[in-house]
Amino acid sequence: MNKNIITYMGFEDDYDDSQLVIFGAPFDGTTSFRPGTRFGPTSIRNEFYGLETYSPYLNEDLNDYKLFDGGDLDFPFGNTGKVLDIIYKKTKSIINNDKIPFMIGGEHLVTYPAFKAVFEKHPEVFIIHLDAHADLRDEYLGEKYSHASVIRRCWELVGDAKIFQLGIRSGEKLEFLWSKEHTYMEKFTIDTIDDVINKLLNKKVYITIDLDVLDPSIFSGTGTPEPGGINFKEIMQLIRKIRALNIVGADVVELSPQYDLSGVSTAVACKVIRELVLAVVSGRRNESI
Amino acid sequence: MNKNIITYMGFEDDYDDSQLVIFGAPFDGTTSFRPGTRFGPTSIRNEFYGLETYSPYLNEDLNDYKLFDGGDLDFPFGNTGKVLDIIYKKTKSIINNDKIPFMIGGEHLVTYPAFKAVFEKHPEVFIIHLDAHADLRDEYLGEKYSHASVIRRCWELVGDAKIFQLGIRSGEKLEFLWSKEHTYMEKFTIDTIDDVINKLLNKKVYITIDLDVLDPSIFSGTGTPEPGGINFKEIMQLIRKIRALNIVGADVVELSPQYDLSGVSTAVACKVIRELVLAVVSGRRNESI
Amino acid sequence: MNKNIITYMGFEDDYDDSQLVIFGAPFDGTTSFRPGTRFGPTSIRNEFYGLETYSPYLNEDLNDYKLFDGGDLDFPFGNTGKVLDIIYKKTKSIINNDKIPFMIGGEHLVTYPAFKAVFEKHPEVFIIHLDAHADLRDEYLGEKYSHASVIRRCWELVGDAKIFQLGIRSGEKLEFLWSKEHTYMEKFTIDTIDDVINKLLNKKVYITIDLDVLDPSIFSGTGTPEPGGINFKEIMQLIRKIRALNIVGADVVELSPQYDLSGVSTAVACKVIRELVLAVVSGRRNESI
Amino acid sequence: MNKNIITYMGFEDDYDDSQLVIFGAPFDGTTSFRPGTRFGPTSIRNEFYGLETYSPYLNEDLNDYKLFDGGDLDFPFGNTGKVLDIIYKKTKSIINNDKIPFMIGGEHLVTYPAFKAVFEKHPEVFIIHLDAHADLRDEYLGEKYSHASVIRRCWELVGDAKIFQLGIRSGEKLEFLWSKEHTYMEKFTIDTIDDVINKLLNKKVYITIDLDVLDPSIFSGTGTPEPGGINFKEIMQLIRKIRALNIVGADVVELSPQYDLSGVSTAVACKVIRELVLAVVSGRRNESI
Amino acid sequence: MNKNIITYMGFEDDYDDSQLVIFGAPFDGTTSFRPGTRFGPTSIRNEFYGLETYSPYLNEDLNDYKLFDGGDLDFPFGNTGKVLDIIYKKTKSIINNDKIPFMIGGEHLVTYPAFKAVFEKHPEVFIIHLDAHADLRDEYLGEKYSHASVIRRCWELVGDAKIFQLGIRSGEKLEFLWSKEHTYMEKFTIDTIDDVINKLLNKKVYITIDLDVLDPSIFSGTGTPEPGGINFKEIMQLIRKIRALNIVGADVVELSPQYDLSGVSTAVACKVIRELVLAVVSGRRNESI
Amino acid sequence: MNKNIITYMGFEDDYDDSQLVIFGAPFDGTTSFRPGTRFGPTSIRNEFYGLETYSPYLNEDLNDYKLFDGGDLDFPFGNTGKVLDIIYKKTKSIINNDKIPFMIGGEHLVTYPAFKAVFEKHPEVFIIHLDAHADLRDEYLGEKYSHASVIRRCWELVGDAKIFQLGIRSGEKLEFLWSKEHTYMEKFTIDTIDDVINKLLNKKVYITIDLDVLDPSIFSGTGTPEPGGINFKEIMQLIRKIRALNIVGADVVELSPQYDLSGVSTAVACKVIRELVLAVVSGRRNESI
Repeated sequence: MNKNIITYMGFEDDYDDSQLVIFGAPFDGTTSFRPGTRFGPTSIRNEFYGLETYSPYLNEDLNDYKLFDGGDLDFPFGNTGKVLDIIYKKTKSIINNDKIPFMIGGEHLVTYPAFKAVFEKHPEVFIIHLDAHADLRDEYLGEKYSHASVIRRCWELVGDAKIFQLGIRSGEKLEFLWSKEHTYMEKFTIDTIDDVINKLLNKKVYITIDLDVLDPSIFSGTGTPEPGGINFKEIMQLIRKIRALNIVGADVVELSPQYDLSGVSTAVACKVIRELVLAVVSGRRNESI
Repeated sequence: MNKNIITYMGFEDDYDDSQLVIFGAPFDGTTSFRPGTRFGPTSIRNEFYGLETYSPYLNEDLNDYKLFDGGDLDFPFGNTGKVLDIIYKKTKSIINNDKIPFMIGGEHLVTYPAFKAVFEKHPEVFIIHLDAHADLRDEYLGEKYSHASVIRRCWELVGDAKIFQLGIRSGEKLEFLWSKEHTYMEKFTIDTIDDVINKLLNKKVYITIDLDVLDPSIFSGTGTPEPGGINFKEIMQLIRKIRALNIVGADVVELSPQYDLSGVSTAVACKVIRELVLAVVSGRRNESI
Repeated sequence: MNKNIITYMGFEDDYDDSQLVIFGAPFDGTTSFRPGTRFGPTSIRNEFYGLETYSPYLNEDLNDYKLFDGGDLDFPFGNTGKVLDIIYKKTKSIINNDKIPFMIGGEHLVTYPAFKAVFEKHPEVFIIHLDAHADLRDEYLGEKYSHASVIRRCWELVGDAKIFQLGIRSGEKLEFLWSKEHTYMEKFTIDTIDDVINKLLNKKVYITIDLDVLDPSIFSGTGTPEPGGINFKEIMQLIRKIRALNIVGADVVELSPQYDLSGVSTAVACKVIRELVLAVVSGRRNESI
Repeated sequence: MNKNIITYMGFEDDYDDSQLVIFGAPFDGTTSFRPGTRFGPTSIRNEFYGLETYSPYLNEDLNDYKLFDGGDLDFPFGNTGKVLDIIYKKTKSIINNDKIPFMIGGEHLVTYPAFKAVFEKHPEVFIIHLDAHADLRDEYLGEKYSHASVIRRCWELVGDAKIFQLGIRSGEKLEFLWSKEHTYMEKFTIDTIDDVINKLLNKKVYITIDLDVLDPSIFSGTGTPEPGGINFKEIMQLIRKIRALNIVGADVVELSPQYDLSGVSTAVACKVIRELVLAVVSGRRNESI
Repeated sequence: MNKNIITYMGFEDDYDDSQLVIFGAPFDGTTSFRPGTRFGPTSIRNEFYGLETYSPYLNEDLNDYKLFDGGDLDFPFGNTGKVLDIIYKKTKSIINNDKIPFMIGGEHLVTYPAFKAVFEKHPEVFIIHLDAHADLRDEYLGEKYSHASVIRRCWELVGDAKIFQLGIRSGEKLEFLWSKEHTYMEKFTIDTIDDVINKLLNKKVYITIDLDVLDPSIFSGTGTPEPGGINFKEIMQLIRKIRALNIVGADVVELSPQYDLSGVSTAVACKVIRELVLAVVSGRRNESI
Repeated sequence: MNKNIITYMGFEDDYDDSQLVIFGAPFDGTTSFRPGTRFGPTSIRNEFYGLETYSPYLNEDLNDYKLFDGGDLDFPFGNTGKVLDIIYKKTKSIINNDKIPFMIGGEHLVTYPAFKAVFEKHPEVFIIHLDAHADLRDEYLGEKYSHASVIRRCWELVGDAKIFQLGIRSGEKLEFLWSKEHTYMEKFTIDTIDDVINKLLNKKVYITIDLDVLDPSIFSGTGTPEPGGINFKEIMQLIRKIRALNIVGADVVELSPQYDLSGVSTAVACKVIRELVLAVVSGRRNESI
């Protein structure tokens, strides 16, 4: 009774022992349409409490792994540069401790600094990018660093043929044209995931999931709903296949819980996170980073 | 003008003439996460008014059958034991009058006393259980009688090989292990329903539908949404097949209307009830109980 | 800076140059259950601002066509007759200027006066009707002009074998019986669309889409949700096929944005409108009206 | 158990014995801005169930009086004329049976036919009108019969110096000017109620309460919220004083429950109705109509 | 970075050093109408984070006192007896450590076990009870332990002339009659607080605030809104005066955050708690318990 | 019919003729808690349509003045510096054309660049500041330019004894201390407004109204509700008195419409704006700038 310690999300292990560190990046500063992803991490933690730790999909249990919850980052709202720097440093420290960083957004721009830290450690890394939007603009509303240009910024780090985009169904005409030269892009669906995984076997991979890749029928809690997305069973299958890969970093972004008063979107985010964490740590069990 | 009589839901026949009696059990006292199923029956009655009585799925019309609405039970909140007793007695009286009891929940625990009354009349009865959750815990938060243990309690009445669980996708690891010995369980889907029905032909069957077996994309009005469920067309097909069985009791539970402000979940519940009632009474037309 | 002109929806061309004129008919006066479609056009315009003008489905861009937004009509609420007359005159003037009228509802009754104006210009016109409801009653609550009787009223203009109804899944038994003599009706699905299109090649067609033909999982913003509808990908495919036809008038009706606080339904309506406009104008590029 | 009779609202007496008859008029057909008052009566009945029958304000109990609930009227939406006629006939029959009619709206236009029936029986009747809006337009959007012209229509029946308007704080400049010649109007407040009551002692009075006379802080469930209204304690005091009058008819209108998800507005409406009913019947105890 | 400790609400001191211990009792098991107070403590903690620790009302700062947050209690839903026992034991242990217990509800029934523990230590204790409801029933729906009977249960401990009820405006006639013999009751208002405080100077006092004593205009987040309550400035003044008393225990109950989507009710609860905590600890600075 | 021009808000005059120019600044980039003020201007414009142009409070009509609506500014989200520059330039151009700028926020930081432009034209200008929060921090979360420091930034322009703060009821202890040296501050209330106005007669004044100065009972649509504020009648009286002053610029900020689903907060904002515009232009009728 003498201690008011809270351990979130069943991630109750010691930092030093842990294989994977989850943390929140509640930033939505460049969101042009409807903000709210800053509330994503808190909403996920609140609901995670009611989630089973056991996955019947993977027959794995969170309690069987060493996992640490590093809490949410504190940001100076209105100063995008500083925010990106804070995320970068956090990810850097996790990866320097030989742990896998697993970030919860926030808007998609948070992927850039986290990926940059991973890329500096693993310059040969590939990206799997699930999203409704191409996010390939060179700039957006005059800004280089935006949720709508984040994958373009990542491409500036890794170059051509390193980024695999799946489920893309919205963007400017120019983005679709540009992708033909520089990234692998499957439009509308994720049916080519088997090919992608075959290409990336034994490679290091960073996976970034913009939850709006899901159809808004199952994930309405997002600022820019794009009907025509994939369904929940499809993303569960994809995650199961991901186990075959060597994931060195991951993020799940763009939950805006206040647009879905039913709580379903948060429940979806929690389950995607549980499954992806289990896929990452169970898939890598016998591998060195 | 001299009478302020309300007949609910097109169930306007005399009790004595009726073949099936519908009633509400608005209890959510053991709900651990988000309560609200107590509002289910009222919400369903309000919306039922706008529903067509004709089903193009079954080519049947509620007006062609003798049906009675027994209203909602009054419960002493906070006293689970008394609540279960009230449900038990209500069901007992219906079944003793040779009518089919059809209960609208309320949380899933209400199934136990209703089923107990049915079981005492028909000890050879089987159970078809549609749900996202296994509900097979021996106890939950220290309590034997809980929404999370209700099927385990039913099993204590009927024993092994009598319970058919379909669509299950969440639970503790132990529940999944336990089910291998004691119940038939199809995980995630309801694709084996044809086999189940073949096994149960000419048998007496109680069917309990926890509406969260449906995917939250179409049924978000529930306290613990579990993405990855079946869709509406699948449950319509299942209900059509159910006509082949001798249903001696039924319930539809776990609508929490306040989590779905759009009203879609209530509309889904109404249609499931209309179809299930029609399936039960049209399927049994030439059979004795 | 000296002008406070607003051009809606990227429909920024001159009226005289335009090929298609979009306008709103925010009427819900005969809605018996839950009103609110009067807010449809405003909600669509507000969200349209955030929509990409480029369609990756059709590889077409709104900016490549001459389109005009005529704004919303002003109605005297409570006087159904006058409302219908205002819509009729508006449509008449558009069609007399050799432009395609494209109306945004409003409840489904608005289709009648718009179609009447189209019919007077093109008496040989066919109707494609997507809807959850048959809308074939002779009258509803004692009224001839009602959302529930609108297609029956249109039939009185065109006669038998001219109306193709798809996706119908709700109605009175009598409506289904009546349709067997007088209209083509596909129940539940839209799978016969290829046959329908083949029959209508080189014919003039008016298309009316009641958005509740979509499943409420993706379109919950409607007064009478009917689970069991078609999904978004199916309607996208149908619209792509529609390009083969000579569309002389169109409407998209029955969005009630306030029943879907997430904004998904409005996003769906916007995308259906964008695609249908592009299908109509790109399909007709080389044809005379 | 053989009867599925519902008695609403503790108004459980026989029609023939009753002194006052309450009924609902769920019409919102001329509402120009945000509809929804059609849901008022149902919402009030649902919540009335949880209300105490005892008023500590008046030290009176509903159970001590003979009251009858006549249910809600059924209307043909879209046909304003027929709707007004149905209300007129209902009120006429109640008043012809020497009972006091007490109507729950619906939009304010419903007052006109109800008042007309009362006026025909009691041509010397006065009106007390509580409202945020003057409702004195000669016509609105081209229509004579509108929520915005209802008191003007009533004036055409009773003439000058018969209508007392209190709490008015919104309208066109012309309405305020017109009222100077034809009605008594207190702007913004209801502080002159004592004077009004003194003038009306021993007179027959019809009272119509548009609930938006209340400040939206306590009554937000209305289509056109007008800040700056009276508070709840003020209306309670006014109702207590009303007991001194001979009320021959009453209505309470303009609750749109869906704009107040908290349920407070419905609770306010219920309490206003309970108090006003008690004031009417207790005040008249020893008087003949 | 090696610790994932969360300190709630700026209550960050060591338990042993602390003068006051706050804890949550998220129980709503006997709530008959609309449940949801179980979400009160979590909602308050989430919002407390954004609250200033400084009170300009009292010119005091939470940071200047030793305060401990003991977290929320875990309850077995459905077993009222066990829940009450858990609260009782928690309060007992706090009071045995010579600290002031400060409980956040939950429904009002939670007051009974907490007060019982305080009463056993301080049998001469008085109660100040702020509420819209009398809570004096002998039983409710057949149950002795209910939110509607909690003050009656407390009276069984302390006897006549020990309970001061303020702001009461709803109840059965019998409760008001009973109170005349057994408690001090001010109806509708809290204007006699100065008298009450004068009577209780130098006495030990337990204060229980049912937040629905506030008018629903400022506190709509409650299951049974009762218009006609006190306003926020009045409760601030009352709390300032409370500093003159020797408060040995306190609770603030009945926030149901989900009924107020604006978050205002939770903000009100947070401020009432901040002020009451500061009043309790600053008022007692130079006194021994 | 050949023009799709929209004139907002009854502000339909030519820019060159206009005396006052209203424009929106939909920025919420430094909002630390709950964003959403970016939606303020759009929400206000949508609702303004239904507002009467006549004020019974001032007996003035918007139609009697020359007013221009300059639309909303477009901002690059995520780049606070550029946003402030855009606002500054817009205000500068209005004021250089000898018109009064009237800005609708957005968060309170938008006041700084607008005021700076006014200050450069009128260096002798005073500020009247209505707010719940002191906004006097030197920096917030490490940032100089924040909604929480905006009045401090303005003070750096005008210096001591130029800023009159009213209604302040929240802040850090340090802000209250700092204000004693540098600004006039009335805590909690606005009762000294007569003194303030007397001091500022014949002076040029900029007025900035953070709408959260109002009590959240009437204005819940704000990110940080602070109970204990002024009521609507008080702000109406203040605005009426403001007519005595020479207002050279004004803004009304911090409406977050999505936190108040009832629409009341937007209605309040509209009325405050209508009254303040009328007070500014009618008060100045015979004066030169």
